[in-house]
Amino acid sequence: MAEPQGTNLDPWYSHYAQRTAGLSASEVRALFAVASRPEVVSLAGGMPYVSALPQDLVLSAAERTVREHGAVALQYGSGQGTPELREHILEVMALEGIRASVDDVVVTTGSQHALELMSKLFLDPGDVVIAEGPSYVTALTVFRSYQAEVVHTAMDAEGLVPEALRETIARVRAAGGRIKLLYTIPSFQNPMGVTLSWQRRMEVLEIARQNDILVLEDNPYGLLYFDQPPPQAMRSVEEQGVVYLGTFSKTLAPGLRVGWAVAPHAVREKLVLANEAAVLSPSSFAQTLISEYLGTADWRAQIDVFRGVYRERRDAMLSALGEQLPSLSWAVPDGGFYVWLRLPEHLDAKAMLPRAVKELVAYTPGTAFYADGGGRNAIRLSFCYPTPDFIREGIRRLATVINGELTLLSEFSQTGPLPLPLPAERPEGVLPPSVG
Amino acid sequence: MAEPQGTNLDPWYSHYAQRTAGLSASEVRALFAVASRPEVVSLAGGMPYVSALPQDLVLSAAERTVREHGAVALQYGSGQGTPELREHILEVMALEGIRASVDDVVVTTGSQHALELMSKLFLDPGDVVIAEGPSYVTALTVFRSYQAEVVHTAMDAEGLVPEALRETIARVRAAGGRIKLLYTIPSFQNPMGVTLSWQRRMEVLEIARQNDILVLEDNPYGLLYFDQPPPQAMRSVEEQGVVYLGTFSKTLAPGLRVGWAVAPHAVREKLVLANEAAVLSPSSFAQTLISEYLGTADWRAQIDVFRGVYRERRDAMLSALGEQLPSLSWAVPDGGFYVWLRLPEHLDAKAMLPRAVKELVAYTPGTAFYADGGGRNAIRLSFCYPTPDFIREGIRRLATVINGELTLLSEFSQTGPLPLPLPAERPEGVLPPSVG
Repeated sequence: MAEPQGTNLDPWYSHYAQRTAGLSASEVRALFAVASRPEVVSLAGGMPYVSALPQDLVLSAAERTVREHGAVALQYGSGQGTPELREHILEVMALEGIRASVDDVVVTTGSQHALELMSKLFLDPGDVVIAEGPSYVTALTVFRSYQAEVVHTAMDAEGLVPEALRETIARVRAAGGRIKLLYTIPSFQNPMGVTLSWQRRMEVLEIARQNDILVLEDNPYGLLYFDQPPPQAMRSVEEQGVVYLGTFSKTLAPGLRVGWAVAPHAVREKLVLANEAAVLSPSSFAQTLISEYLGTADWRAQIDVFRGVYRERRDAMLSALGEQLPSLSWAVPDGGFYVWLRLPEHLDAKAMLPRAVKELVAYTPGTAFYADGGGRNAIRLSFCYPTPDFIREGIRRLATVINGELTLLSEFSQTGPLPLPLPAERPEGVLPPSVG
Repeated sequence: MAEPQGTNLDPWYSHYAQRTAGLSASEVRALFAVASRPEVVSLAGGMPYVSALPQDLVLSAAERTVREHGAVALQYGSGQGTPELREHILEVMALEGIRASVDDVVVTTGSQHALELMSKLFLDPGDVVIAEGPSYVTALTVFRSYQAEVVHTAMDAEGLVPEALRETIARVRAAGGRIKLLYTIPSFQNPMGVTLSWQRRMEVLEIARQNDILVLEDNPYGLLYFDQPPPQAMRSVEEQGVVYLGTFSKTLAPGLRVGWAVAPHAVREKLVLANEAAVLSPSSFAQTLISEYLGTADWRAQIDVFRGVYRERRDAMLSALGEQLPSLSWAVPDGGFYVWLRLPEHLDAKAMLPRAVKELVAYTPGTAFYADGGGRNAIRLSFCYPTPDFIREGIRRLATVINGELTLLSEFSQTGPLPLPLPAERPEGVLPPSVG
């Protein structure tokens, strides 16, 4: 190899694959470091509140995993996942209307790895993935890591807009783009918190069918509703046209890294091969522990506990926003982890972040959720992890920062203070504000 | 999407990425299904004998993971792995002469996932990976899944042959090939069982340096020596030119899916980003459990136990081979899991496999370990999993099959029985036989 010419030089610089050009540190990643400081109230990140999980239930599942199933749990397993866990996954998915066979399920290292495997299987350089705008940041990272182009399609308070989707598809195709996947988070979307209505789910499926586009339905939050369940999963009415992703990260614990995909037969076979190439087999230990937990604990009641925890936190955040930032607008989420807050249009959420951290509050700037630079004056607030008291304190600090920015702007303005509330411009793909 | 026209048709057939053309079920994979039948003595696969692990040690590590570290172990973690586990990994690697910093280590989902991440980072379609012939089957699968070409380089009883490596590099470059990686398993190689001598390690590093090729040093078996430790790791003397892979699958348990990579700084940064895109973070639970195990158990003594188990099994296999198949030849492994058996040249190991399974013994045909069709008359025998009695019975059955094949061949031959021992042809990349 070439001798390194200094500590900052990379002797392998010219050796990387072209796809690494799309691989860069996300804004969320940098935030994780900031958010880990104990004095900062982090409204960034999406860490579930695992402390709501009774230690006894996890402990006894772990003990039985070692004592009763050690020879299996410590060993390599099938690239598709254990039959026991896949049976349990069918029970979990039945809650959202999905009927499938154990053979349709592939266990993955979190649903994140299912996103990675689907991307590896389907995306050639230059292919297009249509995604909601805004969308889950690390899904966008994965698509781009396979040199695909992400094209956003607009959302409103009922989720992605079918007519806008038709137009997006037509526009991409007119420009010669090869559309491989439609990536959607229909229930309690990350980062907007909105839910795709049943009527629209049917319309979106019909559009995908007409246009020969595979739907990648990512559903980490569907069971975490606060009042009414969301509409049933799109996979409940469409087997051949949907690859469905689920996870135990939100209803149990992300530290186990177990998720799954449900896919049409031929896609499922390829997913298993890709899974074997990537990790040989998903963790037998984690799968056995989860099977033991699901087989003995009242896991449905535990999900109810999580729902209560997150509802209380959502309520704390919404009431704090109403008190502290009454002139701003946000979507009211009926489940999940996130509130999407629109800032006055003169504010830049990313530029404001260092000042927020100085005030000991962290959030995720809206631009993180767009592949195209959108989201400049929006921020995602997570209510999943901090307690209600910390959420209120975090919003109070955030209000200090935002109001300070606005005062600063008005002092620099020759025309006096800016009027509040500011008229919100709506770039394509951003929800019209609904005041909480 | 197109309507499926029958249960065997794949409506998404035209949608897959080009790289999926290289993704097919391996011969080893089919064997796993066969080998799982209890009446079959499986000398295929590479499952470690996890029952040699004291249940108490694993149980108490699992209990402390939940009781004392639950909030961390159940949560998302860093894409690089926990600092605690990376510290322990430094202790493990010190046994093979490696000095590194915690910052140099990236924890992965088994070392298999480090192979996947390295391939994703370095391999463009058409790039060349040079690998020993034969080599680890699922490494070859991963390289090909990124549309790289695997070119084998010859080995002998001291591991890969430096002069042959020079010639291979020159040949590939003369043909316009872009060589990205040299993949090697220097100690107790899979599948041949041979070990690269210290002198050759230095020569190979020098060749790589001169030719600007990054060495991917895969070392799952180095600590599982039977008498003398193997030479120190190549990474012990070369930091910039080597990416080193280690794993807990053989010294602890594969069901936890924890391995690691040690890489030069810039490569390590990219590995972390690729790891985050693929799985967000390696399992906090598995990492914590392993840290607890390493922090409290006498893990060095436990590795001694594993050494004793595998040495006894290696001895059982070699003595059974000497008794049952004295006319054949094999390499004597000084560590690891495998014996590479040369068949008479008229036999085809793959074609013979169904008859072996009928006799209730399974092995891996040599062709699985070549990207180019080599290894037709060789088989890999694993002594890691079955007890010595089963190994002896397995070799007895294998001898029945091989002798039956030879009798059959001689009956079909017009010239009477074939002479035994047969002169062994040595295709490039195959070890000269050393009779055990």
